[in-house]
Amino acid sequence: MPGSTFGTLFRVTNFGESHGPAIGCVIDGCPPGLALGVEDIQPELDRRRPGTSRHVTQRNEADQVEILSGVYEGLTTGTPICLLIRNTDQRSKDYGNILDTFRPGHADYTYWRKYGVRDPRGGGRSSARLTAPTVAAGAVARKWLRQQHGTTFSGWMSQLGEIAIPFEDAAQIPLNPFYAPNAGIVPQLEAYMDTLRKAGDSCGARIEVRAHGVPPGLGEPLYDRLDADIAFAMMGLNAVKGVEIGDGFGVVAQRGSHHGDEITPAGFASNHGGGVLGGISTGQDLVVRIAIKPTSSIRTPKASIDRAGAPTQVETFGRHDPCVGIRATPIAESLLALVLMDHALLHRAQCGDVQLATPAVPAQVPTQTPGAAGG
Amino acid sequence: MPGSTFGTLFRVTNFGESHGPAIGCVIDGCPPGLALGVEDIQPELDRRRPGTSRHVTQRNEADQVEILSGVYEGLTTGTPICLLIRNTDQRSKDYGNILDTFRPGHADYTYWRKYGVRDPRGGGRSSARLTAPTVAAGAVARKWLRQQHGTTFSGWMSQLGEIAIPFEDAAQIPLNPFYAPNAGIVPQLEAYMDTLRKAGDSCGARIEVRAHGVPPGLGEPLYDRLDADIAFAMMGLNAVKGVEIGDGFGVVAQRGSHHGDEITPAGFASNHGGGVLGGISTGQDLVVRIAIKPTSSIRTPKASIDRAGAPTQVETFGRHDPCVGIRATPIAESLLALVLMDHALLHRAQCGDVQLATPAVPAQVPTQTPGAAGG
Amino acid sequence: MPGSTFGTLFRVTNFGESHGPAIGCVIDGCPPGLALGVEDIQPELDRRRPGTSRHVTQRNEADQVEILSGVYEGLTTGTPICLLIRNTDQRSKDYGNILDTFRPGHADYTYWRKYGVRDPRGGGRSSARLTAPTVAAGAVARKWLRQQHGTTFSGWMSQLGEIAIPFEDAAQIPLNPFYAPNAGIVPQLEAYMDTLRKAGDSCGARIEVRAHGVPPGLGEPLYDRLDADIAFAMMGLNAVKGVEIGDGFGVVAQRGSHHGDEITPAGFASNHGGGVLGGISTGQDLVVRIAIKPTSSIRTPKASIDRAGAPTQVETFGRHDPCVGIRATPIAESLLALVLMDHALLHRAQCGDVQLATPAVPAQVPTQTPGAAGG
Amino acid sequence: MPGSTFGTLFRVTNFGESHGPAIGCVIDGCPPGLALGVEDIQPELDRRRPGTSRHVTQRNEADQVEILSGVYEGLTTGTPICLLIRNTDQRSKDYGNILDTFRPGHADYTYWRKYGVRDPRGGGRSSARLTAPTVAAGAVARKWLRQQHGTTFSGWMSQLGEIAIPFEDAAQIPLNPFYAPNAGIVPQLEAYMDTLRKAGDSCGARIEVRAHGVPPGLGEPLYDRLDADIAFAMMGLNAVKGVEIGDGFGVVAQRGSHHGDEITPAGFASNHGGGVLGGISTGQDLVVRIAIKPTSSIRTPKASIDRAGAPTQVETFGRHDPCVGIRATPIAESLLALVLMDHALLHRAQCGDVQLATPAVPAQVPTQTPGAAGG
Repeated sequence: MPGSTFGTLFRVTNFGESHGPAIGCVIDGCPPGLALGVEDIQPELDRRRPGTSRHVTQRNEADQVEILSGVYEGLTTGTPICLLIRNTDQRSKDYGNILDTFRPGHADYTYWRKYGVRDPRGGGRSSARLTAPTVAAGAVARKWLRQQHGTTFSGWMSQLGEIAIPFEDAAQIPLNPFYAPNAGIVPQLEAYMDTLRKAGDSCGARIEVRAHGVPPGLGEPLYDRLDADIAFAMMGLNAVKGVEIGDGFGVVAQRGSHHGDEITPAGFASNHGGGVLGGISTGQDLVVRIAIKPTSSIRTPKASIDRAGAPTQVETFGRHDPCVGIRATPIAESLLALVLMDHALLHRAQCGDVQLATPAVPAQVPTQTPGAAGG
Repeated sequence: MPGSTFGTLFRVTNFGESHGPAIGCVIDGCPPGLALGVEDIQPELDRRRPGTSRHVTQRNEADQVEILSGVYEGLTTGTPICLLIRNTDQRSKDYGNILDTFRPGHADYTYWRKYGVRDPRGGGRSSARLTAPTVAAGAVARKWLRQQHGTTFSGWMSQLGEIAIPFEDAAQIPLNPFYAPNAGIVPQLEAYMDTLRKAGDSCGARIEVRAHGVPPGLGEPLYDRLDADIAFAMMGLNAVKGVEIGDGFGVVAQRGSHHGDEITPAGFASNHGGGVLGGISTGQDLVVRIAIKPTSSIRTPKASIDRAGAPTQVETFGRHDPCVGIRATPIAESLLALVLMDHALLHRAQCGDVQLATPAVPAQVPTQTPGAAGG
Repeated sequence: MPGSTFGTLFRVTNFGESHGPAIGCVIDGCPPGLALGVEDIQPELDRRRPGTSRHVTQRNEADQVEILSGVYEGLTTGTPICLLIRNTDQRSKDYGNILDTFRPGHADYTYWRKYGVRDPRGGGRSSARLTAPTVAAGAVARKWLRQQHGTTFSGWMSQLGEIAIPFEDAAQIPLNPFYAPNAGIVPQLEAYMDTLRKAGDSCGARIEVRAHGVPPGLGEPLYDRLDADIAFAMMGLNAVKGVEIGDGFGVVAQRGSHHGDEITPAGFASNHGGGVLGGISTGQDLVVRIAIKPTSSIRTPKASIDRAGAPTQVETFGRHDPCVGIRATPIAESLLALVLMDHALLHRAQCGDVQLATPAVPAQVPTQTPGAAGG
Repeated sequence: MPGSTFGTLFRVTNFGESHGPAIGCVIDGCPPGLALGVEDIQPELDRRRPGTSRHVTQRNEADQVEILSGVYEGLTTGTPICLLIRNTDQRSKDYGNILDTFRPGHADYTYWRKYGVRDPRGGGRSSARLTAPTVAAGAVARKWLRQQHGTTFSGWMSQLGEIAIPFEDAAQIPLNPFYAPNAGIVPQLEAYMDTLRKAGDSCGARIEVRAHGVPPGLGEPLYDRLDADIAFAMMGLNAVKGVEIGDGFGVVAQRGSHHGDEITPAGFASNHGGGVLGGISTGQDLVVRIAIKPTSSIRTPKASIDRAGAPTQVETFGRHDPCVGIRATPIAESLLALVLMDHALLHRAQCGDVQLATPAVPAQVPTQTPGAAGG
């Protein structure tokens, strides 16, 4: 689907600008009969919400979601679900200095070249704030996938700037603001961020997300492969510049004798492929990694031009995330859920419910260490 | 578009199996009035054709394309263009041993889990042979983009297995079977491949592709961003496990003060972003890198199961590429062309011809060293 | 596009239920730079609004539209335009008696069979109230088409129940509640409706809509023809059971020597085809007629079953239109505008702006009497 | 889907020109495991084939279909099915006189205005010959629907020119060249056609098609209703100018007390609605009627212009159908099958297999006289 709609059958149409009256989305194609309330969606929104630690933007957006349609007496009716989030904390004056100039690394220049007109308030349409409706829709997909197929999702930060974060303990992920699966490294991460913030600079991050309990058979080759759609979803997230599935760029130096995951009667013996073969899910965990660039909105002055083409200097004083990657984990999980949801419906359309329900051979990797993906 | 159709407005529908009567595609939505003949398409097919050196599969497929529709007196009519390639060299007996077993790393298992029935001859639908129609369609897109916008494409191998290939001279690329931009390293690559082939093993590769002379303004955020569609296209190519745009995974350890490309009245001062900001083209070169896994069809025996779930050993004796990455360069270029073609039409639909035609400020990077993308 | 989205490039996603918190739509793909405000949309909503005469439902819905996104400083930005209409007059108790029974002629039964769950309040999703967002989106399309191509729309009632309404004077259409192009017949129509209302019954209607100043060349055969999309749009309007283009069912008894519209250097000599040949617009007026069935919500008792399958009687006491056709004219005009808008963008995508701008031969019928369509 | 692709999930992409090397289609999204061979498709093609009586064009097209992909050992594999029909009887010289002029009532003018270039041989892309791939694809849909849901199709001519054809006996339909359900009227039809042919003129026709055994619940409101898609399909067929569902234009003069089909524990008591309520199938027979205009290619001279805009006279001497409606019955049945097929998959995607399989209340009309649709 072109433009602001994500998905072919579970279609999420995103609308809104950072500092307009509201943002939100319409989900069309959701299966009927799913128990759904604000309490299913709000927790996911709260996970990505700004203002929760000193390491993210201090904007205080409540991000309170309202269900305007598609749910009756607590059940989805199969008709479009409109989710609305009113914008509350809009200090547009913070952005006054970017009206006529193009911030380096930002979408200011390209939106202007494409449309000839743009809403500059808070980045307008290109703001990371527009990931909130994606997360809200993802919460609906997650609930259906969990109930229908037992599919669950996890995600964590595996690198912050130059600091690699070894995977130690999944239970630590929700206990620190970085989604780090490693309690011991958190002080180092905090010190790193404090230094960065004082310097008026920003850094990148690497995030890993996984889906567990994925039905085998999802994916629509030749072109609309599961891995292709995952790459589409992830690269479409603000600031992402790289996507890996399974061993990712590690495969370049591998041999075929090492890479091809052997199959045993008890399941796959390894997961170099990351849960996809020929564009179709194997039933193993889906393993995805993304590279997030450093925030472009920094206090350090950079050269740019104004709309008349004259040279100028830009520095940004708004309340920005010094590392957008910090809040990216729940968003990336949501995107993965949206891709799987759409493919679950696509598969059911063509092949029916039967095959998903009756796996004839074991499809799960017997042991699966979350941090050992690159192995 | 789901399944075997690529693109929203320039739509390529791919059909065929490796060892069926024919493969091909239907291109719907091509602008009318484009001069088009077999001579525009065949050279691109010949670039990806097997059997051209000892380092690729020795299957001898002529890959002769026939235009069945959509062209009248040498001009496209705006109606669907059917391109047909008859299969000629089909030694199905080579594949007899894979009828009932699943080759590790192959799509055998997933196609069987998805559809319950599969054409095993030569990999059937999951064969890399099905990239030929993609390349044929890409040739049409390339011609239109070159004529309409002056857009051109280049690609090369930047790593083969463990061997990094420094970019030295673009003129060398077509002169060796590896698409290596470096004449001096070719003997080393040949020796590497000979060793690998004798060992019955395979290796991965990294390919870089670029588009030059890209109009600014292409891309349809929020979701259907140009970079998202590039990632979709590239990750959907057989054996690809990673995609990078611009500095790719290099951004993780970068600072914002370094990453954001400054803009001067003479153009962008660098290209860390790889030609996309906010999902929309900047007018700079598009810079894309992909990681290709080692071929799964190897002579080395590997553990697997048969359709009854019993353990077995699989070794593949067919005539396979020991490195599918060697033939990937022209395919990746074609995919990039298909993405740009579709986005050029999408942009024209919404915003008209005018903006593309009248760039108000310089959008080109003044100097652009192809090999220095990661800088 | 499936489900609740209308259009391929100018995409209108409709959401909401009759008695939920709100209804509305998201328009994605609107060209940027269009001057747009509530004042462009509200008048069209007011034309279809109930409560404006004693011949339509007495529900008093303000239908006040709010623009939530996609417009900045009075101009469309090219990003999704969310239009929201809060529901204000929801007397759900009026509908209590239909919770467990299926009203004959209504969508109650089919929604229940499809989704297993339904919102019964005021017809829920199947209410004619959901045409309001369509009309709102149509107003945007109308403005763009008028500015870009000079295209305008007209519509009127040509039959009410058994009473044919001869076309006399287009100026009369907005001056009576029936959209009748004939002042003299209005008293007869009013008496007819009064009798019907007292009898607790309802009647059908025939509506004619036209587009004037249509660019030639719109339509995407083979399947996505302009006339096919018009039929899709019109038959998709609540209560429509028949669609005609040009001479419609009159062609069955015609001869080819009569039907084929002759072309002269001054333009087409007649318009039996209704402005479409081979699925593509000729540049003549588009001529469309629709048949609207009598309202199913009537006070006359009818046999039905309840959800347990037991026989029951249904009579409906809510405030319903005794002839839904009376308010259909502005809706049908809006649907025609949405179809043309989408095809104008589709055509521009494939063929560019040039052809539309430079008609080489006259494409307009020199004289065009609105009421003489069947001629 | 835009252009030459029909359907959202069961997608038929049509290609070819009347006098090019071949015509055909690619079906993507077909469920796997369906037994399919040429013998399933060829009989339907033979039903629409020209040259079978003196009342249709005497072109002798064998219309022999070839399956190029998507079927392995007699079963569909779930991958694209390419169906190819080589053109054999192409007397292009017959069409020499239309190269530079526009035949009144034909698509010559509009294709030229849209694309600026056109293939004039035999009408090129706008030829009724291009319905052959539609019929071939329809045969696949029919087989699946019959096996999966017991759905069958019927169709007949109900009027030829001025002659109404009373429905008497369905068994007669395949026994005469007109698809007339009435043996007694055939001599009158033959005499009518002979007179018309001698006069060098043509006439229109009305065709009725029905689907029996339709699962309830098919249709995707708000916009993508089942009736809307039927109207799209039918109005998109060459020469169709009107579409009715159920009582069609008869509803205008009906009362609500008459129209709304009562429901009894034994099923619906009548079928004024034609099997659709609120855009969703009821489980009753689908009842559709179409109006087909008289063939535009006639020997009678008509005024037109040439490409330079100068006045000219056009008469057409090719071998044309004097009534295209005669061959339209199998095509209209095929289109209805394609619509139902796509909606069966769309419904299964969103709502699963369960509801279709377990109807809780009777959904079939107890008695159903095919000819009594307008009742």
